Amino acid sequence: MASAYKPEEARVPPALPLPTPPVTKFKIALCQLSVTPDKERNISHARKAIEDTAAKGAQLVVLPEIWNGPYSNDSFPVYAEDIDAGGDASPSTAMLSEVAQRLKITIVGGSIAERSGDRLYNTSCVFDTDGKLLAKHRKIHLFDIDIPGKITFIESKTLTAGQIPTIVDTEVGRIGIGICYDIRFQELAMIYAARGAHLICYPGAFNMTTGPLHWELLQRARATDNQFGEVMATTEHEESIIIAEIDYSVIELRRTNLPVLKQRRGDLYRLVDVERLNSQ
Amino acid sequence: MASAYKPEEARVPPALPLPTPPVTKFKIALCQLSVTPDKERNISHARKAIEDTAAKGAQLVVLPEIWNGPYSNDSFPVYAEDIDAGGDASPSTAMLSEVAQRLKITIVGGSIAERSGDRLYNTSCVFDTDGKLLAKHRKIHLFDIDIPGKITFIESKTLTAGQIPTIVDTEVGRIGIGICYDIRFQELAMIYAARGAHLICYPGAFNMTTGPLHWELLQRARATDNQFGEVMATTEHEESIIIAEIDYSVIELRRTNLPVLKQRRGDLYRLVDVERLNSQ
Repeated sequence: MASAYKPEEARVPPALPLPTPPVTKFKIALCQLSVTPDKERNISHARKAIEDTAAKGAQLVVLPEIWNGPYSNDSFPVYAEDIDAGGDASPSTAMLSEVAQRLKITIVGGSIAERSGDRLYNTSCVFDTDGKLLAKHRKIHLFDIDIPGKITFIESKTLTAGQIPTIVDTEVGRIGIGICYDIRFQELAMIYAARGAHLICYPGAFNMTTGPLHWELLQRARATDNQFGEVMATTEHEESIIIAEIDYSVIELRRTNLPVLKQRRGDLYRLVDVERLNSQ
Repeated sequence: MASAYKPEEARVPPALPLPTPPVTKFKIALCQLSVTPDKERNISHARKAIEDTAAKGAQLVVLPEIWNGPYSNDSFPVYAEDIDAGGDASPSTAMLSEVAQRLKITIVGGSIAERSGDRLYNTSCVFDTDGKLLAKHRKIHLFDIDIPGKITFIESKTLTAGQIPTIVDTEVGRIGIGICYDIRFQELAMIYAARGAHLICYPGAFNMTTGPLHWELLQRARATDNQFGEVMATTEHEESIIIAEIDYSVIELRRTNLPVLKQRRGDLYRLVDVERLNSQ
């Protein structure tokens, strides 16, 4: 009977098998950092946080969204850096590259405002243990919200949205990247799961109006729906650093125990990954 | 810029606008019932629960999964009823029809094992205030699980899976129906939302191994991801009845405040509703 349900057609193109990860267990550090208007301080503050967590054994360090300056449309152009030019044009990513190479760790560098030509993006950079820029994710879903009397923020006033999902093979596994509001759109996580992600990182900087409802719930939902591992912890408003162990064997175990991938109904619904389909 | 992202293409066919609901506020009753091997007792027990909640003002009453007999592959054939034949061939749904008409309420009748020819289904019946059978949902995703030493249950040993998503216009709004494990597959809720559902009901009978992780999390995730209203409460293992007010104005408010539907990236991902596409 099962084949009549066409589970393999529930993802278009069909989901890739989970690749064998380069490591099974490792420590991840999630850094929630205080940010000031002083960019140099923010960079040295982030460097120290990375060094501290690496000293505690973290092999993957994740920074928050917009960690080198204030989160505001006024500030984005001021703190933006030309990541592709690098060096002095991008002191924030130069630091990330240097520290990744020196400490032999993988970094998902939260995000900073990126200047590219006459456009600005909200961009996350992934560095490998040689300090090489492996991938650059530009926030796909800009946060435009208007709740009268509570919160109004229109990212698209200054920022341009990214055009591609970002998934990258690192020394700690295949990682899908989203930035903050990207987590609100379940389709992105579904695409990453179908592309064989071991882990999805969503650097974020939630607001205190819609944030408390969303940040933990959406993470847990993405992890459970797509059968990734556990979410380790939720922190509150203050600066904090969490180090936890990732165990990829949990993914296989979950998918064996509850074989959702073979139970999907491709005869009834299909999620199309447009970019992957077009590249075939 | 926004139009380049083709948000309307993120659902195929494009999502329907939310219809104006026939009521904005009403009371819903969720009945979690104890079940015994005595079918007659189960039917009268359910009838009484419905009568009690209707007396308290409930206009929509929802029963649990498999409420007329034990939840087991041995019991399904024994307690199964021929719903289409009706009358004496289906005392459980005859009761639902009678009480819906008498009390002028809408009932999502949980589910019972349905016999149809030589097949068995796990089927939920929806009755309108005239006692008419509006819709019949056959569980689409059968619960086949094997966690050694913890739980093994293979519904597909006795049951056949349903072939169509079920969404129905009632006097308390447009309701999408799923049964228990159907909630595990986010695509079904996404399809219902795109078909203009005001409410999704998932009668369930979770087990105590995977249940506690899933029942509240998945409900909240479906509601939040698809911007429905609140989940009212979670009950524990024991019998309990919850009456709560549904306020559909929350849906419009949420979708206005956070216009996710206009922010989706149809240029990057598309969810195809196969049945609706084929019927066009």
